[in-house]
Amino acid sequence: MSFEFLADADSGSGGKSVLPGSPEAFFLRRGEGEHAVLFADLFTVLLSGDETEGQFGVFTSKAPKGQLIPAHSHADTHETFYVIEGKVRVYVEDREGRKTSRLLTPGDFGFVPAGLAHAYQVEESARLLGVATGGFERFFQQLGQPTSHAGEGQPPFVPDPARMRAAAQAHNMRFLPDFDWSDAAE
Amino acid sequence: MSFEFLADADSGSGGKSVLPGSPEAFFLRRGEGEHAVLFADLFTVLLSGDETEGQFGVFTSKAPKGQLIPAHSHADTHETFYVIEGKVRVYVEDREGRKTSRLLTPGDFGFVPAGLAHAYQVEESARLLGVATGGFERFFQQLGQPTSHAGEGQPPFVPDPARMRAAAQAHNMRFLPDFDWSDAAE
Repeated sequence: MSFEFLADADSGSGGKSVLPGSPEAFFLRRGEGEHAVLFADLFTVLLSGDETEGQFGVFTSKAPKGQLIPAHSHADTHETFYVIEGKVRVYVEDREGRKTSRLLTPGDFGFVPAGLAHAYQVEESARLLGVATGGFERFFQQLGQPTSHAGEGQPPFVPDPARMRAAAQAHNMRFLPDFDWSDAAE
Repeated sequence: MSFEFLADADSGSGGKSVLPGSPEAFFLRRGEGEHAVLFADLFTVLLSGDETEGQFGVFTSKAPKGQLIPAHSHADTHETFYVIEGKVRVYVEDREGRKTSRLLTPGDFGFVPAGLAHAYQVEESARLLGVATGGFERFFQQLGQPTSHAGEGQPPFVPDPARMRAAAQAHNMRFLPDFDWSDAAE
């Protein structure tokens, strides 16, 4: 992992992380972690691949009801969706081309393995906990706007196309903007 | 991973899992997963290393207020503690021999890397979400009693010493029964 994007951005955090950056024990209070605003959502990294020998990272997102996140796939990254609060619909296409959507409510769980097209939409203000292959957890701060605080009411951040391309390339991700989910089974 | 212990045990599940066993997409409703009772706690595997190419597994535990779980370490397994409900005190010894404890409440997070001695105690009836290096998620059903249902009021299961040795050996884990946490800093 690299902090280039953090150091580049007007992050307020000066590129410093609250995470140890190596496999050492640590604790975080609710709301602590590496924050980034992406569109209207707040992403917070609780654990990175730097602490787990690249195995996995853990992050939360806090998001208002919003639009469908465009379909995408990441060739090297397994990703989970666990709903803490609210309602989130997750869409995924399996290896046979079958599309499914599922409305997840608190305690529900979804898994999207590497390589499959997926998308999601927050249908009711939500908090999610995600786990992904190590390294992917910092995608959100590369694409979004790092910030030093977790408070409400921060202005939304809309990445420009160059930032989207750079973040996608860094994580072997493809955006699939024309993907049609209208025939997804529930 | 092997299901030997599941098939061995009087699990009621016949050794079948609700998880796909390979990197395919799936969803679980709250309360679904692979269940096991260990002492008075219910552990539920939501995702195993079989779905993540061995990278990580995800599990929940639902536990009443209880005694201190004895100190232990696992040489190959990174492990997280995320509190969904309740209060859990996590104890860990760092590489310099400094002991720390932290009372975690909802939204708080703890990380224990591979090799460090740690323990925990549920101080107020809790639900936890854990992530660990792939494979470790099934430790709880190897040590505990697999069960096909997630309901309340199941009898506690106390493993015998042979079962403890077998489960510990399968996960390169050491129990440290005489470990003293009385000098842990908060």
